[in-house]
Amino acid sequence: MIIMRPDATQEQLDHVIKEVKKYGLRVDVSQGQFKTVIGLIGDERKIPFDHLKALPGVQDAFGIEIRYKLISREYNKYSEEVIGRKVIKVKNVEIGEDEPVIIAGPCAVESKDQLLRIAEAVKKAGAHILRGGIFKPRSSVYSFQGLGAEGWEEALGASQWLRKAGDMFDMPVVTEIRGEAQIDLVAEYADILQIGARNMYNQDLLTKVAEKKKPILFKRHFGASIEEFLSFAEYIAAAGNKDIILCERGIIPIGKGKDYTRYTLDLAAVPVIQKETYLPIIVDPSHATGRRDLIFNMSCAAIAAGASGLMIEAHYNPAEALVDGPQMITPEELKRVIDTCKEIRKIMAERKK
Amino acid sequence: MIIMRPDATQEQLDHVIKEVKKYGLRVDVSQGQFKTVIGLIGDERKIPFDHLKALPGVQDAFGIEIRYKLISREYNKYSEEVIGRKVIKVKNVEIGEDEPVIIAGPCAVESKDQLLRIAEAVKKAGAHILRGGIFKPRSSVYSFQGLGAEGWEEALGASQWLRKAGDMFDMPVVTEIRGEAQIDLVAEYADILQIGARNMYNQDLLTKVAEKKKPILFKRHFGASIEEFLSFAEYIAAAGNKDIILCERGIIPIGKGKDYTRYTLDLAAVPVIQKETYLPIIVDPSHATGRRDLIFNMSCAAIAAGASGLMIEAHYNPAEALVDGPQMITPEELKRVIDTCKEIRKIMAERKK
Amino acid sequence: MIIMRPDATQEQLDHVIKEVKKYGLRVDVSQGQFKTVIGLIGDERKIPFDHLKALPGVQDAFGIEIRYKLISREYNKYSEEVIGRKVIKVKNVEIGEDEPVIIAGPCAVESKDQLLRIAEAVKKAGAHILRGGIFKPRSSVYSFQGLGAEGWEEALGASQWLRKAGDMFDMPVVTEIRGEAQIDLVAEYADILQIGARNMYNQDLLTKVAEKKKPILFKRHFGASIEEFLSFAEYIAAAGNKDIILCERGIIPIGKGKDYTRYTLDLAAVPVIQKETYLPIIVDPSHATGRRDLIFNMSCAAIAAGASGLMIEAHYNPAEALVDGPQMITPEELKRVIDTCKEIRKIMAERKK
Amino acid sequence: MIIMRPDATQEQLDHVIKEVKKYGLRVDVSQGQFKTVIGLIGDERKIPFDHLKALPGVQDAFGIEIRYKLISREYNKYSEEVIGRKVIKVKNVEIGEDEPVIIAGPCAVESKDQLLRIAEAVKKAGAHILRGGIFKPRSSVYSFQGLGAEGWEEALGASQWLRKAGDMFDMPVVTEIRGEAQIDLVAEYADILQIGARNMYNQDLLTKVAEKKKPILFKRHFGASIEEFLSFAEYIAAAGNKDIILCERGIIPIGKGKDYTRYTLDLAAVPVIQKETYLPIIVDPSHATGRRDLIFNMSCAAIAAGASGLMIEAHYNPAEALVDGPQMITPEELKRVIDTCKEIRKIMAERKK
Repeated sequence: MIIMRPDATQEQLDHVIKEVKKYGLRVDVSQGQFKTVIGLIGDERKIPFDHLKALPGVQDAFGIEIRYKLISREYNKYSEEVIGRKVIKVKNVEIGEDEPVIIAGPCAVESKDQLLRIAEAVKKAGAHILRGGIFKPRSSVYSFQGLGAEGWEEALGASQWLRKAGDMFDMPVVTEIRGEAQIDLVAEYADILQIGARNMYNQDLLTKVAEKKKPILFKRHFGASIEEFLSFAEYIAAAGNKDIILCERGIIPIGKGKDYTRYTLDLAAVPVIQKETYLPIIVDPSHATGRRDLIFNMSCAAIAAGASGLMIEAHYNPAEALVDGPQMITPEELKRVIDTCKEIRKIMAERKK
Repeated sequence: MIIMRPDATQEQLDHVIKEVKKYGLRVDVSQGQFKTVIGLIGDERKIPFDHLKALPGVQDAFGIEIRYKLISREYNKYSEEVIGRKVIKVKNVEIGEDEPVIIAGPCAVESKDQLLRIAEAVKKAGAHILRGGIFKPRSSVYSFQGLGAEGWEEALGASQWLRKAGDMFDMPVVTEIRGEAQIDLVAEYADILQIGARNMYNQDLLTKVAEKKKPILFKRHFGASIEEFLSFAEYIAAAGNKDIILCERGIIPIGKGKDYTRYTLDLAAVPVIQKETYLPIIVDPSHATGRRDLIFNMSCAAIAAGASGLMIEAHYNPAEALVDGPQMITPEELKRVIDTCKEIRKIMAERKK
Repeated sequence: MIIMRPDATQEQLDHVIKEVKKYGLRVDVSQGQFKTVIGLIGDERKIPFDHLKALPGVQDAFGIEIRYKLISREYNKYSEEVIGRKVIKVKNVEIGEDEPVIIAGPCAVESKDQLLRIAEAVKKAGAHILRGGIFKPRSSVYSFQGLGAEGWEEALGASQWLRKAGDMFDMPVVTEIRGEAQIDLVAEYADILQIGARNMYNQDLLTKVAEKKKPILFKRHFGASIEEFLSFAEYIAAAGNKDIILCERGIIPIGKGKDYTRYTLDLAAVPVIQKETYLPIIVDPSHATGRRDLIFNMSCAAIAAGASGLMIEAHYNPAEALVDGPQMITPEELKRVIDTCKEIRKIMAERKK
Repeated sequence: MIIMRPDATQEQLDHVIKEVKKYGLRVDVSQGQFKTVIGLIGDERKIPFDHLKALPGVQDAFGIEIRYKLISREYNKYSEEVIGRKVIKVKNVEIGEDEPVIIAGPCAVESKDQLLRIAEAVKKAGAHILRGGIFKPRSSVYSFQGLGAEGWEEALGASQWLRKAGDMFDMPVVTEIRGEAQIDLVAEYADILQIGARNMYNQDLLTKVAEKKKPILFKRHFGASIEEFLSFAEYIAAAGNKDIILCERGIIPIGKGKDYTRYTLDLAAVPVIQKETYLPIIVDPSHATGRRDLIFNMSCAAIAAGASGLMIEAHYNPAEALVDGPQMITPEELKRVIDTCKEIRKIMAERKK
């Protein structure tokens, strides 16, 4: 960042900008009432700030570690984009509007029949978007890794079922891309491309998925601060894709002893992120808690915290699911969640300042 | 825990119990349809389990680390106490009923005038209980430690103002006991005795405060798991005082980089603790977030998560407060919080299963 | 895991095994003096344990979450492989023997000249393996991402310089693979393939890199428990590559306030992992601390904790490095570190039980 | 902190100081070559910085959160005290010199016989100071709380045994004060007063124990950052007692899954704290790891990291200890630890820059 003296001339300003460009960076000039500030876009390490500081008209020049600019509310405050939330439209669903958007479905796609049955049930319960994992990231190589892991044909089949289920019940579909080799397949069949928590730091995957120009559901890693989360979302934006739906799904629990929930749901991240960025943020109470009996309360809490939507795992018979049975709810319970959340949102919208 | 064989005789059972008592422990015998289980109360390390295992009629004998029994819903499931929440009545306020209870006031008592003015304002906004710190735990010896730290007279004065403010505006009052020497003074003037997060592990203080037989507001340490929090609440119960109001106030944020909130508010702890224990749990969004602009959302979220109440710092002019100004809200904002929370609770109560 | 009754017949055992195989799992039968235990290899979720429990001769049947078997000392206790450490030989360097192995070099390869100069200096200081990043994982898209990020030619050039520097000074070379697209290039030029902390959870990358059949330097993620770290190392082993050099490089610091070190170096992980697995584990004090002035002490501590080696960033002029200057040491300091570490290892080896 | 203009006169400086004193603070004036800086001692919140900023000769005035000054190396850099370590002499033992000081003994004092037998054994193994808990802080009210918890007579008896054991085998003794009521008793019999990790944040206890003017062994809380640890040590110093022996004993492990060690030993805290403060810091590998089989390696690592000493639990027969059996080592093993640590320290001292 370069701060010009109050009495700097336009000529001096132009000269400074020319110098900066020599080093391969772009500039963003903001002329305030009292001072002109030049923001640098690119790798600031290439800049010899001492040299710049010595140029005529320059008051100060220094590198600042702004780690996210493109998705930042502050940095885009003069842009129309950030008056309120950015609304991401996927088919007939708008994410970022007042109405909470509900993404629901099974943890993993297990069979065509299972998927269609669940899709119908969650649609009826009020869900807007269908989820279903084809490639499951797992902590143990000895756990079920999703149908996608069993071979190309299975992966293709599961992708087509998901597409079909979405079309039949008029819901856009979202599924996770776990590795670079899966991008083309998933991008062909899904409306929203999910990058899971375990891949949040995987900058190569982020960049490559971004290039598909489809909305991305981007989950926070369980060990990541909010700042890191947004810094990696910036990788997606920097690759030219700002249709990013952020998702809070719980962070590592701290403290000695038994964990009563799988992760600690960081709901304050919701309003914090809404102040930092114009992107919509949703909450996944299923993975965060890992407990069916907490979904109702934590979904309501997420909406009360301001989330633009929820991602909930549901199954007509949670007991028979191959993955994450203990955290899935039934379609009936899902309906109760959705109805209550809508009312909470309504009440809060009325009392918004 | 000792498990008797299905065919064990009453005589064998009696003999086992007699043996256990020899080691200074008490027993809790639970006779199920298929087996009889003997729970041990006291220091299990004194028990030679191998010896017990060899007694006639015994199927198995082993130590289990149950760390909280007296406050446990599970352990008291046949007691009337735990049908629903335990309701703690303080003057005309009932904590643990459906209506959310609001504790509000300044972070620190600074003067009689400040306190009375705030008390009147928060009462009008709908608060039920008045808070105000006299002895402030602080991370730095160079910060203001509360009027109580400035001398006996100041401590007495502040306590009396608090009492008076509560009486004038018909609110019970709560203030923190930071050290053993303050117990008598605070217990004389306050209706609810607060043990702060930093003292959660201070078992000697817990025991001594418990003996005053007044309701205790017990805050979770920011480094404590839920299991630890409840294990230390058990110290209070074990000292003969079960009028414990638990309070979630945020845990240590994890992840590299800037903290956008002071602590991470662990709202899932609310329903978890309600399933583990019959005690009421409230939430303190002020200390958890440290940010005025998050209080509305996080208060609503806490109530949606199921909290029995909120503890919120409020001031007619937050900018002039000596401590924690950035997290205090105005009485007007407090009213908005309270009104919205009440409606959220109502909606959720209607949809309770 | 299935536990047979002490009086189970061979016929009953055979029948149980046949049943298990029906579900696509393999078995590992261990016949102890008192009981026979059948371990299951594969996805245990496919197994109807209730059905198995009901088979004749079965005492108990249940799923256990063993997350690492192939790399486990316990699970391989009858194998010759795990008497002591597994020694991984890379050219003339043996990792896992008593002599600590030192990997040193610049954080990032910046130019041919820089690399050759550093290579010569670290070799002279006593280093065994040369490191140098071509693809740098970075928390901010606005930071220098390594020469590899600037284009194919730059990536190829940097890889060739690294190879040449290794050959000139007779050191095997290691560099990081950050994304799947880089595997072929790096595997062609490097002797050891590094998977960085941020990719620890990236199971697709792990599997693909493993298939190159070159030794892998596998770093612990800063948010990962030891159990998770080993569970993901198991992905590499499960892909047929057991030449895994584990690396502790620091975990997320906890507690409020300023971080004096970038991460918390978890040195107890060293002896713990040596008890859990037969793989060698080394320590990276440079990334863990981020502070040049702590490298000497923390390197000595790592060797005293039992590490098989160290990975240290060094530069003839740390001040001019594009990345991580504050944590690099000079070749002179590196020599002091290496010499002292060798002596500490000698003393401890003499006093080994 | 107030920064004077380069051209400020002595008169202006005097005026500023006079103003500051009006608010009850003291000053520390540091006149550098180019500017004069006035440090403020006391509660800076009382200061109207805007008013000060407007005074003639003042360039800038602002509050800074220095949380530890009295124990800070930086802040005392012109004092003789901080050339090297502060050496704390307790009887014939010097803590802070090159030779590592070993504190050893049982976790809890259980009987006179047990204590004398252990005291003799650890002395023979090379220990310098005897430890033994009389009041044990415990996470569960159902665990053994130390003899001190069983009554006044038991507490007195145990204290006298400890004193006697120390005298018989010529070792100063240290034991923990868990609550304010125990201060007088412990201070009468012990040479060093321990404040345990769970009481690190207990500022009232810290202040009261400090007033006894005996050396204090001050343990870091498992949830505390280094900055917090030192900020609370400052409470002791501010109460007039700088004979503080800091002790690192492990912090909360992070990451999902099984904990292989009870806590994470943060050994980098050792050199960090030695750069921040002139106080000696020792390490307790027993409580940090909770595992006997890790004591040798982690003790050596602690000494290599630069620790001034170790606190190790030892017992002639660990299996029969009432508390913490799994982490105690035998006197023979203690001797191996001490001998190896001494040699490591010698090697490192020789190679000190």
